[in-house]
Amino acid sequence: MDDIYLQSLQLHRQYQGKLGVSSLISVKNRTDLSLLYTPGVAEACRVIAKDPNESFELTMRGRTVAVISDGSAVLGLGNIGAAAAMPVMEGKSLLMKEFAGVDSIPLVIDTQETEKIIEFVKNVAPSFAGINLEDISAPRCFEVEDSLQEIGIPVFHDDQHGTAIVVSAALKNAAKVVEKDFSSLKVVMVGAGAAGLATAKMLLGLDGAWTELRQLSDVAHIAQLKIVDTRGVIYPSRPDVLNPHNKYKNALLKFSNTPDEAADLAHALIGADVVIGVSGPNIITTEMISKMAPKAIVFAMANPTPEILPDEAKKGGAMVVATGRSDYENQVNNVLAFPGVFLAVVKARLPRITTQMKYAAADALSSMVESPNASLILPDPFMPNLAQQVADAIILASKKV
Amino acid sequence: MDDIYLQSLQLHRQYQGKLGVSSLISVKNRTDLSLLYTPGVAEACRVIAKDPNESFELTMRGRTVAVISDGSAVLGLGNIGAAAAMPVMEGKSLLMKEFAGVDSIPLVIDTQETEKIIEFVKNVAPSFAGINLEDISAPRCFEVEDSLQEIGIPVFHDDQHGTAIVVSAALKNAAKVVEKDFSSLKVVMVGAGAAGLATAKMLLGLDGAWTELRQLSDVAHIAQLKIVDTRGVIYPSRPDVLNPHNKYKNALLKFSNTPDEAADLAHALIGADVVIGVSGPNIITTEMISKMAPKAIVFAMANPTPEILPDEAKKGGAMVVATGRSDYENQVNNVLAFPGVFLAVVKARLPRITTQMKYAAADALSSMVESPNASLILPDPFMPNLAQQVADAIILASKKV
Repeated sequence: MDDIYLQSLQLHRQYQGKLGVSSLISVKNRTDLSLLYTPGVAEACRVIAKDPNESFELTMRGRTVAVISDGSAVLGLGNIGAAAAMPVMEGKSLLMKEFAGVDSIPLVIDTQETEKIIEFVKNVAPSFAGINLEDISAPRCFEVEDSLQEIGIPVFHDDQHGTAIVVSAALKNAAKVVEKDFSSLKVVMVGAGAAGLATAKMLLGLDGAWTELRQLSDVAHIAQLKIVDTRGVIYPSRPDVLNPHNKYKNALLKFSNTPDEAADLAHALIGADVVIGVSGPNIITTEMISKMAPKAIVFAMANPTPEILPDEAKKGGAMVVATGRSDYENQVNNVLAFPGVFLAVVKARLPRITTQMKYAAADALSSMVESPNASLILPDPFMPNLAQQVADAIILASKKV
Repeated sequence: MDDIYLQSLQLHRQYQGKLGVSSLISVKNRTDLSLLYTPGVAEACRVIAKDPNESFELTMRGRTVAVISDGSAVLGLGNIGAAAAMPVMEGKSLLMKEFAGVDSIPLVIDTQETEKIIEFVKNVAPSFAGINLEDISAPRCFEVEDSLQEIGIPVFHDDQHGTAIVVSAALKNAAKVVEKDFSSLKVVMVGAGAAGLATAKMLLGLDGAWTELRQLSDVAHIAQLKIVDTRGVIYPSRPDVLNPHNKYKNALLKFSNTPDEAADLAHALIGADVVIGVSGPNIITTEMISKMAPKAIVFAMANPTPEILPDEAKKGGAMVVATGRSDYENQVNNVLAFPGVFLAVVKARLPRITTQMKYAAADALSSMVESPNASLILPDPFMPNLAQQVADAIILASKKV
């Protein structure tokens, strides 16, 4: 592992990052100059001034998205601030280009105030076809994103929705492997941060802003979901759940069929079909797994150390195990989703990403695995045309609305 | 001319703009993924978190600048807003790459409030090595720029300083052609917008924020300068000059040796050695030129129609004439300056651009013309290594401070 860190640092220093800017047309003489800059460029300006939609056709805007972070919740590193978050954002942009051919620009910003992040994104929107928010801590990320759904271009917080899409895809195939019906699964979500709440929201088939969630009838959603945070199961009469700070947790309870009773993690897992961990290291034991329903599904995605190691989970009777790591089978990795999502955004100039589109992306991903088995519930990220297929599924879904 | 517009529009549509994003390293397998993204990337984050200066070494920040506009004063088009300004900003970024190899990102922003522009630039600063402000109208551009001089990376409003540098270079060579001493020239500046005031400021050898200008002793500055706006010459007791809105005009008067008397443009030009027009079409007549000092220098840079056509100026006795247009001799074109300026910024990681550096850039440009004559006072923008030489001169000047 240390080797990877050293090698990575060396590469970053050698290339001074990972992303460059390139000219699509060269400027060799005065004619080029007058066509690509003044006076010729004035015509494109005039056409856009008359019809702002033309900015997507006549400038890089139409094929370029921004990856924006305030550096408040970076990987396993926490709140390291704007400048230190750049290697991750530049990496995200690199993957966007490599996996989907989408041009994107990493922007790290020197404010962590919710209102100012919202204002920043609104102000920069005319430069881009879409915005990938990244590594912004909960619960601010929910408010930031909800406030930006009407700006005319999609604002997609990948920590939330990228995870939600890939977990949903993995869970659909895992359900096939254990021969249970996806909609009847009893799920325990461990962790109530951005990824946990957004994944719960998607698994429950919910669309819309957090303050006005509605359950969609046209997507399959799971039957019962319990969310466990550091205080145990979140249940309707739990006193702190009424605190406005917890309104996002609270909002999900209306749709989750969570019994109104206190319970700790161990108790919550009794009889559950699925546990999804997006929390911290080693908090699930083999014994807890052994009390789950037969043929349990365990997604232990805390990084770098999972909630329970795959071997321990299997000892407890788990049939399908996934983690966030590349050195175990079934890696749940956002790179399966976000490049295809933004490819759809630039190809179809989508104004927003709906829950139906996320389900379509998840379905596309799960159907890429021809015969799911316990060791193979997700496609290989390097599968040719993967992002293309995700994008096509999203675009198809966008036309159904 | 119409042909140029149509061809240009077609090119913009064909390429969907002019600039792209490129990967510096390809991501072909899981090892690449772990080196360029998670988990390897965490090491670069940690190093930057300890020392933010490392962000210039380990990410694209160190070689990338932003070209930012609010679309309030675009070319000859005026206030066309953010989206419509993008073709110009993307063009600027294209020239930055083509002429100096500097990576830059065009950002058009959806606010024209001075305070919000300042906040936007401050917030985005950790992503870039420098900021090129562009096409922001006066007098807001002065306040925006002055407020941003201490953010640790240079903020350079090209409409002001690019013009000032190239005009200074042209004027130095023009002075040689007419065999007059640069420092003793009597100059009339016609137009008191961003370009006019900033050029006047530089010709007077002034450095610092507008509210605390100081005249440098180590750069040659001209002896007498009159600025003419739509109300005629700006003179100390002119009533409106005391209006806070005009504080920028007012600030220059302390250093300009402008007589304290009312005068119109025609009167101001009597006996002047130089007239620099950055105003509007056809406002200078042959007769006015004929009353200037012998061997007059006429820079008529209004676009697309100059203050006076070169032939008319020469009829009035002008010896050296320059315009902003490529179809006349002596084109004053900012592309001679800004690519080299930002090459210096990324090469030497300059924290700001001083007046001494601007003079060094101007001197470098003027000395590139071996034997200046009336038809040749500026180098060809396509001269090999031009930006490199400008950058080297600026870096040398930065070391003298």
